[in-house]
Amino acid sequence: MERLSEVARQEQFLSVLSREEAAARFRAAVPHATLPAETVLLAEALGRVLAEDIASPIDVPPFDRSLVDGFAVRAADTESAREGSPVRLGLNAEILACGTAPNLAVAPGTATPIATGGVIPRGADAVVMVEATEFLGDAAGPAIEVARASNPGQFVGYTGADMALGETVLRRGVRFTAREIGMLAACGLDRVPVVRRPRVAVLSTGDELMAPGALLRPGAIYDSNGAIVAASVAENGGVALPGGIVADDEASLETAIRESLETADLVVLSGGTSKGAGDVSHRILSRLGEPGILVHGVALKPGKPLCLAAVGTKAIVVLPGFPTSAMFTFHEFVVPLVRALAGLPPREEASVEARVPQRVPSELGRMEFVMASLSRTGDGLVALPLPKGSGSVTAFSQADGFFPVPANRAGLEAGEAVTVSRLGAGVKPPDLTIVGSHCLGLDRVVGLLADRGYRARTIWVGSAGGLAALKRGECDLTAMHLLDPESGRYNAPFLAPEMRLAPGWRRMQGVVFRAGDPRFAGRRAAEAVAALAGDAETVMVNRNTGSGTRLLIDGLLEGGRPAGYWNQPRSHNAVAAAVAQGRADWGVAIEGVARAYGLGFLPLTEEHYDLAYRAERANEPGLAVFLALLAEPETRVALRELGFATGAGD
Amino acid sequence: MERLSEVARQEQFLSVLSREEAAARFRAAVPHATLPAETVLLAEALGRVLAEDIASPIDVPPFDRSLVDGFAVRAADTESAREGSPVRLGLNAEILACGTAPNLAVAPGTATPIATGGVIPRGADAVVMVEATEFLGDAAGPAIEVARASNPGQFVGYTGADMALGETVLRRGVRFTAREIGMLAACGLDRVPVVRRPRVAVLSTGDELMAPGALLRPGAIYDSNGAIVAASVAENGGVALPGGIVADDEASLETAIRESLETADLVVLSGGTSKGAGDVSHRILSRLGEPGILVHGVALKPGKPLCLAAVGTKAIVVLPGFPTSAMFTFHEFVVPLVRALAGLPPREEASVEARVPQRVPSELGRMEFVMASLSRTGDGLVALPLPKGSGSVTAFSQADGFFPVPANRAGLEAGEAVTVSRLGAGVKPPDLTIVGSHCLGLDRVVGLLADRGYRARTIWVGSAGGLAALKRGECDLTAMHLLDPESGRYNAPFLAPEMRLAPGWRRMQGVVFRAGDPRFAGRRAAEAVAALAGDAETVMVNRNTGSGTRLLIDGLLEGGRPAGYWNQPRSHNAVAAAVAQGRADWGVAIEGVARAYGLGFLPLTEEHYDLAYRAERANEPGLAVFLALLAEPETRVALRELGFATGAGD
Repeated sequence: MERLSEVARQEQFLSVLSREEAAARFRAAVPHATLPAETVLLAEALGRVLAEDIASPIDVPPFDRSLVDGFAVRAADTESAREGSPVRLGLNAEILACGTAPNLAVAPGTATPIATGGVIPRGADAVVMVEATEFLGDAAGPAIEVARASNPGQFVGYTGADMALGETVLRRGVRFTAREIGMLAACGLDRVPVVRRPRVAVLSTGDELMAPGALLRPGAIYDSNGAIVAASVAENGGVALPGGIVADDEASLETAIRESLETADLVVLSGGTSKGAGDVSHRILSRLGEPGILVHGVALKPGKPLCLAAVGTKAIVVLPGFPTSAMFTFHEFVVPLVRALAGLPPREEASVEARVPQRVPSELGRMEFVMASLSRTGDGLVALPLPKGSGSVTAFSQADGFFPVPANRAGLEAGEAVTVSRLGAGVKPPDLTIVGSHCLGLDRVVGLLADRGYRARTIWVGSAGGLAALKRGECDLTAMHLLDPESGRYNAPFLAPEMRLAPGWRRMQGVVFRAGDPRFAGRRAAEAVAALAGDAETVMVNRNTGSGTRLLIDGLLEGGRPAGYWNQPRSHNAVAAAVAQGRADWGVAIEGVARAYGLGFLPLTEEHYDLAYRAERANEPGLAVFLALLAEPETRVALRELGFATGAGD
Repeated sequence: MERLSEVARQEQFLSVLSREEAAARFRAAVPHATLPAETVLLAEALGRVLAEDIASPIDVPPFDRSLVDGFAVRAADTESAREGSPVRLGLNAEILACGTAPNLAVAPGTATPIATGGVIPRGADAVVMVEATEFLGDAAGPAIEVARASNPGQFVGYTGADMALGETVLRRGVRFTAREIGMLAACGLDRVPVVRRPRVAVLSTGDELMAPGALLRPGAIYDSNGAIVAASVAENGGVALPGGIVADDEASLETAIRESLETADLVVLSGGTSKGAGDVSHRILSRLGEPGILVHGVALKPGKPLCLAAVGTKAIVVLPGFPTSAMFTFHEFVVPLVRALAGLPPREEASVEARVPQRVPSELGRMEFVMASLSRTGDGLVALPLPKGSGSVTAFSQADGFFPVPANRAGLEAGEAVTVSRLGAGVKPPDLTIVGSHCLGLDRVVGLLADRGYRARTIWVGSAGGLAALKRGECDLTAMHLLDPESGRYNAPFLAPEMRLAPGWRRMQGVVFRAGDPRFAGRRAAEAVAALAGDAETVMVNRNTGSGTRLLIDGLLEGGRPAGYWNQPRSHNAVAAAVAQGRADWGVAIEGVARAYGLGFLPLTEEHYDLAYRAERANEPGLAVFLALLAEPETRVALRELGFATGAGD
C-alpha cells in the first residue's frame, strides 16, 4: 500500500511542460554539438560524417588528357584540312597508352597516337578522333590524313578541371555516400577524418521484462524498447551500447546508470516513468550530480511521462515504458540530440519537383540523364544542368541529383517541370549558389559562412560563365576577375544595370616558369615574354577566352602568337601543371598557385577578384549573411593570411 | 599501330541497343530474383530483408493487462457509484506488480491493486485508475471508495490485441528498420531469416590506375570507380568484394574474372569498354561460357559503351571507365539487379502529402502525433488514423508514418491536408488495404497474393469496424463474419447497396475450455452452457459487441448473463488465452485457435468468413487480382489444409 500512497507525492514532481519549453531546457543543459573527429579508412566511411573540410591534395585529372582514342596534334596544323583536301601528319614514334608519360614532343606537322586518358604531349593542343583519320603506311613512313580542322582544346580534358590542387572539394558535415567516397578516392585519399559516432547506452527497466529468445514466464513480457531504441540509434548515426534489462530496484538501476555514464555520451532508459515506478528513477537521477532532473512531464501525446536529466553535460533520458510513447518521445528528444552529436542534418526527401531554367538539348532516340544542381527561387526549385562532362567525378558531388530527358524528345523547353532524383541521402539545396571563377580565398570565406550555419554551393565555370549565369538568374553570386582593356578597370564595367558588385580582394598575377629556368630567372616579366615570344623552342600555355587572365596575356603579347598559344586551359592550376610537367615553359597564373607547384614567379599586376549579385536578391538570407561576412575584420584577416591583398584604396 | 587498326573490327560488335532492349536481354539471361535465406541475430538485422513470413509465436500482450496504475474490479460492482455516493470495495491481499502472476480472484465487492502492465486477475473485467479512488484503511480492513462507474474493459489491454499467436506479423520482403526489429523482439524472437546479401565482385581495370593512398606516378590517375561501385553496392543491399585494380592484359583480367565468378553472385568491372581497350574484355567474355556477351553498346548518355554479359546465370557487367558514365550505367543496370537479388523494392520518399478522411479529434494545448496508414484513392493519398493505442508495437508496423495535430488545434477536419512523415525507409503504400476481422486463412491468401507481386496491408478492427471503414471508402476489402439473427444468414444482409460479397470460407466455432475440465468434457456445447450459466464459480469470457461471435454467444445464452459476461475482449485469441490462463473457464472461439492453445472444443456452428468490397473498385489492379486469386483451386487447397471449409453448397 505504501507504493500506492506515494502517488500523490509523485504527482507533485510531474509538472507538465510544453514540448518547446522541455526542448529549450534540455538544449540549454546538454550541448547539441558535433563530437570530435576520428580517422577511418575511406572504404569504411559510408554513412559517416566528414569532420573537416577536405582540400584536394592533387589536380584531378593530374595532367591534360585525351578524352578519346585518337591522335594528339597541333590544331593549327589542321586549319586548312577539308573533305577532299586532307592534311597529312607524320606519326611520332611513340604510342601514348593510358598510364604512360610522353617522351616526345609533337613538332609542327606531326601527330602522336594517344588512347583515351593518355597524357597530352608537349606541343599538342588538340586530339583528333581515330575515326576521323586515314592511316597511311607508305614509303615516307607512318602518317595519318585528317580531313577536318580541329579546334584548340578539342577532346582535351585539362588538368584540375574536375578538382584543383588546394580546392576545397568536400566540406565538414557532409554524410558520406558513394559519391563522396568516389571523390576522395579520385584525389588519392584512403583515410578520412569523420565525426566520432555518439555512443548511446540503452537500458530497459521493469521486473516484467524478459529478453527475446528466453522462455516467457507467466505475467512477463518481452522487452521490445531495448531493440527499437538500439536500432533507432544506429539509424540516426549513433552506436548503441546495449545494456539489456535492469531490475527495477534502486541499487541495480543506479549501478547500471553510473556504469553507462562512464562509457556513453548519452544514456537512454525505457520504462520506469509511470506513476507507480517513476519514483525510483526520479530518486536516482536526483542524486547523480548537477544539474539532475531537467524535465519530468511533457505535453505530448503519446509520451507525457518523459523524464529528461543531465549529469554534467551528459544527458540521461527516461522514456515511457509503452512502445509507442517511448518511440515518439525518442524521436522528439533523443533523435535530434543523437543527430546533432553525430553531426547529421535533418532528413530530406528522395526526389523533388523542379523546373529547368533554360532549354536542355538532347539527342532524339536515346534517353539522356542530366546532372543537375538545385537552387531555390521565389518560384520554387530550379534544376540547373551541370556543365561538366562524363569524365567528371565531382559532377556527382556538385549535383543534387539527375533528371531524364526521354528518348522520344529532342530536348526539354525552358520552364518545363522535371522530377529530380536525389543522389544519396541527406542532401539539401544550399542557402547560396556561387558560380564563377575559383579562388582559395573564396573557399575560405565559404568555410566561414558554413561556421555561421549557411551552406553554399560553388560551381567553377570561369568569370564570364558566372556572369552569364547571374544574368539568367541561376545563381546568387558570381565570383569574377575580368579586366576591361579600355578602362583598365576590373569587373565593374561588365555588370548589367540590375547587378551590384561587392568588393572582394586582390591576387598578384605573374609569369610562372620552372624554378631555375635560365630563360626567365632574374628577369622582369614583360622583358622575358618579349624576348622569348619569337623562340620556337619556348612553348607557352595560354588561358581560355573570357578569362581575366587571357586579357592580361593578350595585352602582354601585343598581338603575338608564340608556340603553345592555342593551348588554352581554363584554370590557374592547369597552367601551372602544364609548366611543372614540361608540356609548356611559361604561362600566367596567380602567385599562390605558382607557390603550390614550386614554380618561379615574375609579378605582373594585381587582379581584382570581386563578387557580383543581383540587387533584388540582396536581402535573401544566405546572400545577406555572405555580404555582411565579406566586410568583417575576421574575414579580411583570414584572406591576408592566405596572401591576398584586401582593404580600401585598391 | 595494330591496336588502332582494330578499331574498325571492334565497331562491328558495338551494335547499340535501346535501353529497354538492353534491359530485356539482360533480364532474360540473368534472373532478377531474390537470393536464398540465412539466419542472423535480430540485433544485427537492421537494413536486412526478411526472407520468410513471420507468424507470431505468442500473443502480444501475452495476457489481459492493466493500462494504468489502479485497481482491478468487476465493472458491475461500480455500476451504482456516483459522486457523493461512492461504492466501497474491499482490497484483496495481493498487489499485482508488473511481471507477477495473480493468485487470487476478484470476488464480487472486492478489488486488487494493480500496476500498469500487471496481469488482470480472474473475475475482474475493468481497472479503476488510482487517482479516481479514495484509500480507506479502517477497522473493516483495507478498502477503496470509487465515485464513478466503470465500463467493462476499461483500462484493460486484451491478450493478443497487438499481435495474436499465429498471426502473420511481418511478410517476406520487408526491410528491417527499428520498428520491425521492435515487433519481432516483442514477440520474443532473437533470430530472423533474412535474404542473403548479394556478393558483388568489384574490379577496376586500366594500366593508368593506382589505388588511393599510393604515390601517383606521372601519367597515372587514382581509381575512383572501384570505391564508388563498392559503396553503391552497399547502399543497395549488397556486399562488395573489392578486387582492386587488375592490369589491362588478357591473362590477368581473365584470371581475375574467373576467380570472382567463383565467389561472387555478380561481377562488376569498370574500364575496358572504350574502343581502344574494349577488345580485351570482349575476347575474354566471349569465351568464359554461355550465354556470353548479351549487350555491347546502349543508347544512353552518358554510358554508351556498356557491356552486359553472363556465364550461366551470373552476370558480368563491364562499365565504361569514365566515372559519370560508369555511375549512370551502374544505376540503370546493376542497381536493379543488386536490389532484386537482395529482395529490395525500389525507393520512395521520406514524407508525403495526404488528406485525412474523417475528423481527427485532439486535445487543445498539446501537440498530438497520430499514427496513420496511407491508402491510394482516385483522389490522391489518404492518411487513415490507426485505431491502436500507445501500448502497441504494431502501431509502428502497420503505420506508414505519422502526422502532427498542432497544439493550438482541437483537431483536424475531414479532408484537411497533412504531411505524413514516413517511418523508416523502403516503405511504400500497399496495393490493397484490408480492414476487418483477422483469420489465419486470410494470412495465407495474402501470402499467395504477395507471391504474385501485390502487397496488402491488413488492419484488424473486427467485422463491424471493417464494414464501417469500407462504407467510408478507407479500404479496398473488408474481412467479415457477421451473423444476422433474424435471417440466420452471414454477412450478405449487412452490405450496403454499393457493396459486393466475395465468398470466402467457413470456420467451425465452438465452446472452448481447459482440456479435461469435467464440467465440459464429453458434453454437447449447448447442453454444457445451459447447465453452467447459473453457476457463480464458472466464469465465462465473452466477445465484444459487433463481433459475429458475440451474436452467437448471445443466442446461446438466451438473455442470461453469467459471471464473466462483461469480460469482452476483441479476438478469438484473447478468449482462448483467458481460458488457458485460468482467468475464465469457457468462451466461444474457432477450432484452429482452440487447437493452438491446447484447449478442449465443443463444436457449435460454422461461421462464414467472407470478403466485401465496393462494386466501383472491383477493377482496381490489387483488388481484381485478389478476387481472382480467391477463386483459384490452389487457394482453396491451401485453405483446406489449414482446416477451413470451402466450396459450393456452404
